[in-house]
Amino acid sequence: MVNNSLVTDFYELTMAYSYFKEGRKEEIAYFDVFYRKNPDNGGFAIFCGLEQIIDYLVNLKFSEEDIEFLKSKNLFDEDFLNYLRNFKFKGDVYSFKEGSVIFPYEPIMTIRANLVDAQIVETMILIQFNHQSLIATKANRIVRSAKGRKIMEFGARRAHGVDSSIYGARAAYIAGCAGTSNTILGKMYNMEVMGTMAHSYVQSFDSELEAFETYARTYPNNALLLVDSYDTLKSGVPNAIKVFKKLKEEGYKPLGIRIDSGDLAYLSKQARKMLDEAGLEECKICVSNSLDEYLIKQLIIEQEAPIDTFGVGERLICAKSDPVFGGVYKLGALEKQGNIIPKIKLSDNVSKMTNPGFKNVYRLYDEEGYAKADLITLREEHIIDGDIEIFDEHFTYKRTVIKQAKVKPMLNLILKNGQLVEPLPTLEEIKQYLQLELKTLYGEVKRFDNPHIYYVDLSPKLWDLKNELIHKYKKIN
Amino acid sequence: MVNNSLVTDFYELTMAYSYFKEGRKEEIAYFDVFYRKNPDNGGFAIFCGLEQIIDYLVNLKFSEEDIEFLKSKNLFDEDFLNYLRNFKFKGDVYSFKEGSVIFPYEPIMTIRANLVDAQIVETMILIQFNHQSLIATKANRIVRSAKGRKIMEFGARRAHGVDSSIYGARAAYIAGCAGTSNTILGKMYNMEVMGTMAHSYVQSFDSELEAFETYARTYPNNALLLVDSYDTLKSGVPNAIKVFKKLKEEGYKPLGIRIDSGDLAYLSKQARKMLDEAGLEECKICVSNSLDEYLIKQLIIEQEAPIDTFGVGERLICAKSDPVFGGVYKLGALEKQGNIIPKIKLSDNVSKMTNPGFKNVYRLYDEEGYAKADLITLREEHIIDGDIEIFDEHFTYKRTVIKQAKVKPMLNLILKNGQLVEPLPTLEEIKQYLQLELKTLYGEVKRFDNPHIYYVDLSPKLWDLKNELIHKYKKIN
Repeated sequence: MVNNSLVTDFYELTMAYSYFKEGRKEEIAYFDVFYRKNPDNGGFAIFCGLEQIIDYLVNLKFSEEDIEFLKSKNLFDEDFLNYLRNFKFKGDVYSFKEGSVIFPYEPIMTIRANLVDAQIVETMILIQFNHQSLIATKANRIVRSAKGRKIMEFGARRAHGVDSSIYGARAAYIAGCAGTSNTILGKMYNMEVMGTMAHSYVQSFDSELEAFETYARTYPNNALLLVDSYDTLKSGVPNAIKVFKKLKEEGYKPLGIRIDSGDLAYLSKQARKMLDEAGLEECKICVSNSLDEYLIKQLIIEQEAPIDTFGVGERLICAKSDPVFGGVYKLGALEKQGNIIPKIKLSDNVSKMTNPGFKNVYRLYDEEGYAKADLITLREEHIIDGDIEIFDEHFTYKRTVIKQAKVKPMLNLILKNGQLVEPLPTLEEIKQYLQLELKTLYGEVKRFDNPHIYYVDLSPKLWDLKNELIHKYKKIN
Repeated sequence: MVNNSLVTDFYELTMAYSYFKEGRKEEIAYFDVFYRKNPDNGGFAIFCGLEQIIDYLVNLKFSEEDIEFLKSKNLFDEDFLNYLRNFKFKGDVYSFKEGSVIFPYEPIMTIRANLVDAQIVETMILIQFNHQSLIATKANRIVRSAKGRKIMEFGARRAHGVDSSIYGARAAYIAGCAGTSNTILGKMYNMEVMGTMAHSYVQSFDSELEAFETYARTYPNNALLLVDSYDTLKSGVPNAIKVFKKLKEEGYKPLGIRIDSGDLAYLSKQARKMLDEAGLEECKICVSNSLDEYLIKQLIIEQEAPIDTFGVGERLICAKSDPVFGGVYKLGALEKQGNIIPKIKLSDNVSKMTNPGFKNVYRLYDEEGYAKADLITLREEHIIDGDIEIFDEHFTYKRTVIKQAKVKPMLNLILKNGQLVEPLPTLEEIKQYLQLELKTLYGEVKRFDNPHIYYVDLSPKLWDLKNELIHKYKKIN
């Protein structure tokens, strides 16, 4: 059984030990979680994974076996190993709500903890943040492409390991999928678990008709029949129709068919016609076969295929088109004897420079209630409703005033001294929250091709601090 | 804590129940695991994940909580739930050795079990097969591109969940990586766990020099210093040199530097020069920053960058260039009263047709000991050394004779009635086995661009059977 305490890059432990040995374990650090690029060149991403991050932080402990292993490396002294033996995360966590729409470069979470503890938890926080935000963002693109038709997450078998299948399905559900094929999600989250039948089921009978009849006998009210094992239009659909008619005569309600290969537009149109002509207008058509947002869009918009439900697997669960979500965990500040000392990371690469200090993020809404910009501030600043001028960090002459802006602070205290401030939202609440967030986005931010680049700007105070630190560190180092 | 018994597509359970209810649970099924396309258009793939598959099969059981959940779906009767309550996998598993070089369309594993049991285990077998084979194949490309230089797997934070970080690291190690940053692999597999330091460590000090001095104090024999936090050549490398010289004076052996941004070719050349001029020829240069096989090839071959070690993260652990490994699990045959009844799946798409029957695979080696072709046969056939004629399944006039072929049967019995036939190999043995396998491949199969397509052919007997079934099922359905 996996114990996640050692799921951490080894350097987290060696750095933590160095801090510990140098007597720096009482120093408080502020680490920001953020990312730099929206997947698929989209206009935004979706924050997911907070529940698993909090669960990890609250329950993190090192077993005696873990300690023995670390001892065997001959790098750590007994004091440090004892510290780990009694480890309990006592830091604070500020975070966006799970299910939030997020943008590059803004802190989505800030972890405030002593240097040692804050360092040790980096890897696991990033794994959850990166994985689930990646899948939620991709799945939401697929859901939006279907214009209200149901998307079922069918990817388990192609997932990158068991957790990828489980937490990928969780993120996909938050993002708007109707359910998943992965049974365990039903048990863990009461999520709708769904499925049809496999080709092997059909093959295991002497004929397709016998397979359908048998399945309908076992599941008279759940007969969704896979029709492409031999020949979709000549064999699959006609056999399904025979079985559905009989089911109706017997008073049951047949569900419909699934097509898993071939030209889905052509086959769905022909199948729809055949079903309708047989008086089976209520039978649905579900399709699958390496679908993604582009193929779905083509099917329903360009080709007007009469499809009711899409089963989407590998391209969702692996985020095939852009499978790396590059979230990072960067030091923003230290706190010594109550004084906050902002820190910056310079780089030859401007995009890799960090924003210093203990920060907050305010979302600014325009008079129509649409999100117009996110403003990163120092924590001590308090932004209030009213006209707010924002400016581009690099091209400071580019300025905009948001008239009568309503502001919403985004980074809220979730853990205080390692304790939950209030219960986390349920999965359904997170899913609903995302829908509210999406309603506040302009269509220009949501479109797939060349979306509007949403403003994420710095407050004048933060901008001044950042520039001051750039000059200071360029001089010292 | 996750219990993997419900990590299964729900349709596996609904199909299994249908078989159960129809009195078919004594029927024996033969399911083949195979894949259709090499990732990245490569010439082969690497089979990984067998250990986890066997572990799952041997330990699979349903908890009372699982049963309660399934009961709540109101689909299954008490008989079936009792069957699951007492579930124990009692099937046979035939498999290639873990670490084998594999090719499209050949059965890599065959599961022989009663229909119910064989169906239930599909999803978990595919998750492990697909994930680990994907990562091993990708990691091996990266390892081969480095021409003997060390590759360290650094991807945990970008992995698709915890399992992806753990079993991805395992697969990467089998594929030839020298070690991983993910600490838990050291505990689980005694794998070499490695790391340097993060930018946050450097930032947490008032100056870079102070950071390096402190780290060297904690780890005088493990000082691998990250030199790109402020300015690699003006600050990072000069500061590292100061610290290394002092370490040497004190009798320690400094390790080297890591560069994580900027122009890695230019910076590594300049850094090498500076280190050499300071008499630190023994100090190594490690680089990282979104590397993959193509960038590494460019760095070391085109640009002759003096790099000793590569830290490779996101593009390896997510298999960024081609993140879906499409392994499938298809019914090959049923067995009733001791008679094997071969089964086929037709499709409008020729590539989705399956090979029927209970099969074996023989690898044919030429007189020089190179693998020349894989021959899929019926299990009852016994291929022996000698001249062997093979032919293309679709273009049967394309024929080749392999003179004095040595043959090796690839599908070996691993589990018999749910029991291990012999202990599984250790991780080191698997890693070594892969190296032997790679030595038998012609360079033409291993090259990245337009590799030779390795022959995977059917024996005449299997070919006849397949064609007979195609005609038969086209008639029935």
